[in-house]
Amino acid sequence: MTEVVTFLSDYGYEDDFVGVCHAVIAKLAPDVRVIDLNHGLPRHQVRPAALALRNALPYTPAGVHLAVVDPEVGAERRAIAVRTAEEDRLLVGPDNGLLALAAERFGGAVEAVEIGRSPWRLEPVSHTFHGRDIFAPVAAYLASGWALAEAGEPIDASDLAGLELPRPRHEDGALVAHVLTVDRFGNAALNVGHDDLADSGLRLGRPVLLEAGAGRRRRAQYAVTFADVAPGELLVYEDAWRTLAVAVNRGNAARELALRPDSELRLRPEE
Amino acid sequence: MTEVVTFLSDYGYEDDFVGVCHAVIAKLAPDVRVIDLNHGLPRHQVRPAALALRNALPYTPAGVHLAVVDPEVGAERRAIAVRTAEEDRLLVGPDNGLLALAAERFGGAVEAVEIGRSPWRLEPVSHTFHGRDIFAPVAAYLASGWALAEAGEPIDASDLAGLELPRPRHEDGALVAHVLTVDRFGNAALNVGHDDLADSGLRLGRPVLLEAGAGRRRRAQYAVTFADVAPGELLVYEDAWRTLAVAVNRGNAARELALRPDSELRLRPEE
Amino acid sequence: MTEVVTFLSDYGYEDDFVGVCHAVIAKLAPDVRVIDLNHGLPRHQVRPAALALRNALPYTPAGVHLAVVDPEVGAERRAIAVRTAEEDRLLVGPDNGLLALAAERFGGAVEAVEIGRSPWRLEPVSHTFHGRDIFAPVAAYLASGWALAEAGEPIDASDLAGLELPRPRHEDGALVAHVLTVDRFGNAALNVGHDDLADSGLRLGRPVLLEAGAGRRRRAQYAVTFADVAPGELLVYEDAWRTLAVAVNRGNAARELALRPDSELRLRPEE
Repeated sequence: MTEVVTFLSDYGYEDDFVGVCHAVIAKLAPDVRVIDLNHGLPRHQVRPAALALRNALPYTPAGVHLAVVDPEVGAERRAIAVRTAEEDRLLVGPDNGLLALAAERFGGAVEAVEIGRSPWRLEPVSHTFHGRDIFAPVAAYLASGWALAEAGEPIDASDLAGLELPRPRHEDGALVAHVLTVDRFGNAALNVGHDDLADSGLRLGRPVLLEAGAGRRRRAQYAVTFADVAPGELLVYEDAWRTLAVAVNRGNAARELALRPDSELRLRPEE
Repeated sequence: MTEVVTFLSDYGYEDDFVGVCHAVIAKLAPDVRVIDLNHGLPRHQVRPAALALRNALPYTPAGVHLAVVDPEVGAERRAIAVRTAEEDRLLVGPDNGLLALAAERFGGAVEAVEIGRSPWRLEPVSHTFHGRDIFAPVAAYLASGWALAEAGEPIDASDLAGLELPRPRHEDGALVAHVLTVDRFGNAALNVGHDDLADSGLRLGRPVLLEAGAGRRRRAQYAVTFADVAPGELLVYEDAWRTLAVAVNRGNAARELALRPDSELRLRPEE
Repeated sequence: MTEVVTFLSDYGYEDDFVGVCHAVIAKLAPDVRVIDLNHGLPRHQVRPAALALRNALPYTPAGVHLAVVDPEVGAERRAIAVRTAEEDRLLVGPDNGLLALAAERFGGAVEAVEIGRSPWRLEPVSHTFHGRDIFAPVAAYLASGWALAEAGEPIDASDLAGLELPRPRHEDGALVAHVLTVDRFGNAALNVGHDDLADSGLRLGRPVLLEAGAGRRRRAQYAVTFADVAPGELLVYEDAWRTLAVAVNRGNAARELALRPDSELRLRPEE
């Protein structure tokens, strides 16, 4: 069976970055298959990429998972490769929190190496393109079956950069949530997962009062899908990743409610 | 020989949708190869995608052809997989007309199953991402050699959603055509195929009077290629899919003639 | 080992062009692997694509290298396939200079054929989509092991279209450079390679006076990486391809200095 490298980044599609990383992997590991998860992530923003990686990985074959969103490339942050407790997933990328949620999803990191001076790196290592010179080669070797321990210097797997997500809380009969990400349609994903919903007091098909910043108050419906509300109306729904989200059917909820990542949003069930 | 899944959608390149569908297929069918035909199709517009699929499929290996442009996801439309009369092509997608032109191109559908509750679907099926939860898994299993009949419930292959294209007609010495699609350069493809051209009265290298809405009248040349007319001038030509199209050399014909999908355009050969 | 075709173009991601070329190759050569280098190159501009191809190829496996940026498709330019002196790289594309820098990088072309009427072309050859009808099929056959000489008519390998890049020069104590390309962040790559730097008088960590057109004079720092200067400040640095470039940390150097491709920029080391 072909070994798989999945690849996620903020490199975009206008430049050669993604293609050259593919080339590097193909040259070092001709039989490895690369699956692009997404390269259109918002530039230099670690959190949406960390969430996307965590959400996508359960759908991918176990393998090597390369992720590069690296605003501090060339500066002090470490480059790492880690093994997860469950399924032996290997995560490769910068140690800036990008890998944290995915590692957590698979039971946490149980082995970690610093790969900034990996014997597999391409010399001379550029100061701006570690995807090509460090991360892709390490992913290629690991997918070819080389041992993680040979990728670089062992480091403490319990001491990697984390990524704190705000937790939802209950206050005055409202669920106090925060926006995690806003997509290009203005749909806002909240820090409320499927399991948090049990206690939320929200009931499917019932109205919800939304209280956003600057005194914005709007009525929404807790619905299954967009088509359950009229065009232009707000809905609260579980998105495809089972995360609570806010949208306007054929509209833009983020604009309507002035939501951005980290915005607070209160959801109050209406009788 | 590797089995092939081709994949076309309106998912775009900013989100994880395409990558996660790739992941699902790779996980269920590790040896299957996925060929992306296009994911930049206009969002939620069935007709341009149905035309693109019909145009592209003759160039692809026979296999499983996954297509997802699904404005009614989560609502009543059926999810289907069909086999074509010629070449045993297997088409997978929503039953909203998206597959109709491609099926027709290969002799029509001769077997069809409803796959909304396919045994191969991923549970829990989300309300918004059937690409991941229904269509990709079914494509993966079919490409792995499982029988179409096992994908779901048999349905009447002659009762699938169709897609009516306007037919060109002759009137007062003019060819009355309609715009099918407008690309990002403003080139407008018409509902006039290579075979319709025989009776059109148009002659290569000769001028054509174009009559668009709101009394817009412009002279164009029936040319082989853009370079046959001066920059800024209109031409009528057979595009790469052998469909009659209207363009401005280094300009924007749709803007010049106020053309949109379904706009009527009269072409009158000039002596 | 799987044979590889790398593929670079200005086809973009909104249309079917890239996907259909993939399909054609998969149909003719099922076991060949296609690696997309970049399809987001600026439309119809040969030089940035020729530079991108030259820069990327050393990182790819040796194989067939398909490149299509073809503003004169349908007109007089030849379609060619060439073999390089070093590594037996096979380059396929239009004879408009696109392949020139890559060929040079591998010791020059030693064998060349005109493929406009290749026996492997798809009939009828369209007037606008030679990627599908000529270049992709030729790449597929070559990657399958067919001989270059069978791809078409032999032509003089020393008589292919070249691509002249301006040379940097020294004048009045300044390094007179020209802009080769400007990326979407406004970073401008100059015609100064790693080897030209030795004589430049520039010293890492020292200030450089930049003199652009219209009397624009700005102080920059010759730095290793963006983080070496404060946000908003200009830097001169070696980019990931070891080419001298000008940028503003978190800003847009091209706008600040009114730089475009071919703009002259004088760099004067400051004491």
